[in-house]
Amino acid sequence: MTGTAIKNWQSVQQEVLNRINSKLWKPGDLIPNEAQLASEFGCARATVNRALQNLADTGLLERRRKAGTRVATHPVRKATLDIPIIRKEITGKGYAYRYALVSTETVVPPRDMAARMRLKPDEKILHIVGLHMANGEPYVFENRWINSNVVPAVRDVDFSKQSPNEWLVENIPFTSGDIAFSALCAGAFEAEMLSCKTGEGLFVIDRSTWKAEGAITSVRLVFAPGYRIHTEI
Amino acid sequence: MTGTAIKNWQSVQQEVLNRINSKLWKPGDLIPNEAQLASEFGCARATVNRALQNLADTGLLERRRKAGTRVATHPVRKATLDIPIIRKEITGKGYAYRYALVSTETVVPPRDMAARMRLKPDEKILHIVGLHMANGEPYVFENRWINSNVVPAVRDVDFSKQSPNEWLVENIPFTSGDIAFSALCAGAFEAEMLSCKTGEGLFVIDRSTWKAEGAITSVRLVFAPGYRIHTEI
Repeated sequence: MTGTAIKNWQSVQQEVLNRINSKLWKPGDLIPNEAQLASEFGCARATVNRALQNLADTGLLERRRKAGTRVATHPVRKATLDIPIIRKEITGKGYAYRYALVSTETVVPPRDMAARMRLKPDEKILHIVGLHMANGEPYVFENRWINSNVVPAVRDVDFSKQSPNEWLVENIPFTSGDIAFSALCAGAFEAEMLSCKTGEGLFVIDRSTWKAEGAITSVRLVFAPGYRIHTEI
Repeated sequence: MTGTAIKNWQSVQQEVLNRINSKLWKPGDLIPNEAQLASEFGCARATVNRALQNLADTGLLERRRKAGTRVATHPVRKATLDIPIIRKEITGKGYAYRYALVSTETVVPPRDMAARMRLKPDEKILHIVGLHMANGEPYVFENRWINSNVVPAVRDVDFSKQSPNEWLVENIPFTSGDIAFSALCAGAFEAEMLSCKTGEGLFVIDRSTWKAEGAITSVRLVFAPGYRIHTEI
């Protein structure tokens, strides 16, 4: 390595990884600063910065302002998941996409949902159940609440034409949100929606988004048996 | 906003979010460059860069070298998940941690696992089943294969004292890996390991890691009923 100029951030990253893997730089060690590494590798400091930041993002390095960069002692690996529009996820896999509206109503939600969305007592909001299909087979259904008092435009939308998932992403930007992944055992409702057997293990995503005025939406996505989310670490 | 100096990257981010949310900057629009925004906000260009990069990381902006920064038309939101050592995850929730080794053997793995780990025909590797407990209750079990030919040091470890999860994280750095999330329906084996009923929906993580010499490990983590992973978007 020494003596060979490193041209891009990927090769800087590989060299840093090699030094960590070979224990030349051990867990807890302070590594040379960006300027020193740039000089050693014969590359721009920004190139070193990008490589180190990427390794910090994956949890292998710990960077502190002024205190410098250390090899992580207990690396907490991070995985980044893309959360696309469901239509794009399905067409991206090469399947034909279809959306079917199952039901829509404006009602007072169950108490736990009203609390999660911080509604007023007896506040009625929009409840939509819809099914996303891939090549005609159930792929995921969404059981969604939309705060129609925070997002009044939602009252004029025809959700038999477009899924609320897609309409919200395109029209209502959010400032914060949370997402949770879990599993459930298919009961009668899930089995009917997804044309599967009761007792199947189903992958579940719960998601809520917020803007300054309050909760926009809270949705449970329940996927057909066999669904997997995959990413690199 | 105009006329008020913005001091930190969080307030730059908030102002950019406000402009996107109010549709002052619409999906697809090219936004002013870093130098222009730094001048408008009366802050350092690095401050603007950090705010824009953060919004790009969450999928709201699309940045291209030389072509500039645009408001994403179909924002693909990204969620980042921490993948800690299981012991740290359990103690971090305030539970007492215990690990129990269930079985260990050196055998030829099933064909699909041998293919995934790119083993030679009839190559024997280490198979370990272990249970992680929180306050004495089953939390997750790991069904793990370790390529003892790529990681020979593993042969001398006593896995009744330390879980392979923790030993590998601390001793065998990896250069690449993948992770998948899914659900399964508890069969007799899962129900016995987790002291739950057959037919429960269980959350599953499959993870494989690699170094230059080959696959290090491939593990399936099966969590007790009710497990959730939660993060912000």
